Amino acid sequence: MEGNCLNGKVYLVGAGPGDPDLLTVKALRLLRTADAVLHDDLVVPEILKLISPAAQVRNVGKRCGTKTMRQEEINFLMVTLAASGLQVVRLKSGDPLIFGRAGEEMEALRRADIEYEIVPGITSALGAAAAAGIPLTHRDTSSTLVLTAGHRAAESPDWKQFAAAKATLVVYMPGHSYREIAGNLIDAGFAKDTPCAIISRATTPTQETYRTTISDLLRVPRLPAPTLLVIGEVVRFADGDVPGEVLGSFGLQQKWGVLTGSGLLPAALSSSDEEPLV
Amino acid sequence: MEGNCLNGKVYLVGAGPGDPDLLTVKALRLLRTADAVLHDDLVVPEILKLISPAAQVRNVGKRCGTKTMRQEEINFLMVTLAASGLQVVRLKSGDPLIFGRAGEEMEALRRADIEYEIVPGITSALGAAAAAGIPLTHRDTSSTLVLTAGHRAAESPDWKQFAAAKATLVVYMPGHSYREIAGNLIDAGFAKDTPCAIISRATTPTQETYRTTISDLLRVPRLPAPTLLVIGEVVRFADGDVPGEVLGSFGLQQKWGVLTGSGLLPAALSSSDEEPLV
Repeated sequence: MEGNCLNGKVYLVGAGPGDPDLLTVKALRLLRTADAVLHDDLVVPEILKLISPAAQVRNVGKRCGTKTMRQEEINFLMVTLAASGLQVVRLKSGDPLIFGRAGEEMEALRRADIEYEIVPGITSALGAAAAAGIPLTHRDTSSTLVLTAGHRAAESPDWKQFAAAKATLVVYMPGHSYREIAGNLIDAGFAKDTPCAIISRATTPTQETYRTTISDLLRVPRLPAPTLLVIGEVVRFADGDVPGEVLGSFGLQQKWGVLTGSGLLPAALSSSDEEPLV
Repeated sequence: MEGNCLNGKVYLVGAGPGDPDLLTVKALRLLRTADAVLHDDLVVPEILKLISPAAQVRNVGKRCGTKTMRQEEINFLMVTLAASGLQVVRLKSGDPLIFGRAGEEMEALRRADIEYEIVPGITSALGAAAAAGIPLTHRDTSSTLVLTAGHRAAESPDWKQFAAAKATLVVYMPGHSYREIAGNLIDAGFAKDTPCAIISRATTPTQETYRTTISDLLRVPRLPAPTLLVIGEVVRFADGDVPGEVLGSFGLQQKWGVLTGSGLLPAALSSSDEEPLV
């Protein structure tokens, strides 16, 4: 005890792409010890189950039905809870610093003189690429990775350099704007047969992947959100996928990790004995 | 036991940016149960200590003094170990799919008909940004994040669109090519006073950060490798940094996580009792 136990703190924590096994060790520890957790709507129930039963838990997601909470209200809630001495986890899917509005929350915390710390998470692009077996860079094919958001991809970006650079593009939250995105890519000089992959609910048991090309993006079936669009020659390296077919998670040997098994505790963490691998 | 216990498997695992607390739960479990671990040179000793004492451990890093191992030799070693029935972890710093040559290793494993699985890790950009308090995207400033490698940044990329897109650029392994990188950025239309940050040994106790601008990149002091260069308006949001001064890790309240404390076991994982936060 160092006498500062009355001081609250906010942890801006990445929950990763979905699979609880892809939480960082630090994120898991914080979830199990936090006094309060404010989470986004996209954080899966299997991760919320890891939170201490004693904690206050609140969905502050922007999509939670009618209870839309403005960013200012989220900031106010974080500050108020921490100012009352609580250890607060602000839990965001993926990584908090990528498309997570952490910048705005950090500013609010700084203005209120509340101590905070950022705990990175596996951003969706990395989770989806790992689950679909797509190397995001490749010595022969791509030495640059571009992460962008769907609303921007569907607007009017000029992506000529990306095409020239042979970059891998990952579009977060592409929605159903595939026609606009395909048009922009072709205008930028991408070859029409550049391979693409759409990954839905990456790293969860209901993951689906769909492989196609830029010119066939118009014909993509509607896959459940959240989805992610990967564009580039590296998609050719994806394993198991057949272009034009939706591939379910079992084809990828995807399943929840042991964290969501009979106990919350990963067996290999609780004992130094050899344990069979998952 | 399902009768396939003689079949080896290779896990391509991300070790994250350095702090063992930023390993994923899955990566930690695999390190503690693997029969063999082949690791890159950049993986820190504090993470290697988490490997089961019974495991074969081998540094296959490209920089390990005179023992330079070619990619083909690493592939051969992975295949041979797995073919003999072992559970093999191929451990790479950061994320295996970003500048990690995982694509080549996946191809080799597929050719040899060896089962494999990719376990993502926190890529250095996310670790460094979290430790330095830099939001990589921001609603007002940047909706695109570009990750590229130093050798490419120092060559002759045409980054006009990145400048126009107000993207955040992160250069992995910039080496000491700051003069070339600054020249390319200015040629591409980046404002000379665009803020930059160099983060050395991110998330470790010896982390250092240095804030500057594109025009002053020439005067950057030599910081210990591995370093990472972040360029973009978002760097203005970094906390605690003073442009032109090297900021040590203590200014960022950086320290190793509990994984490297008295025991290897994170206290909060081994018990559901409330534990004081780190």
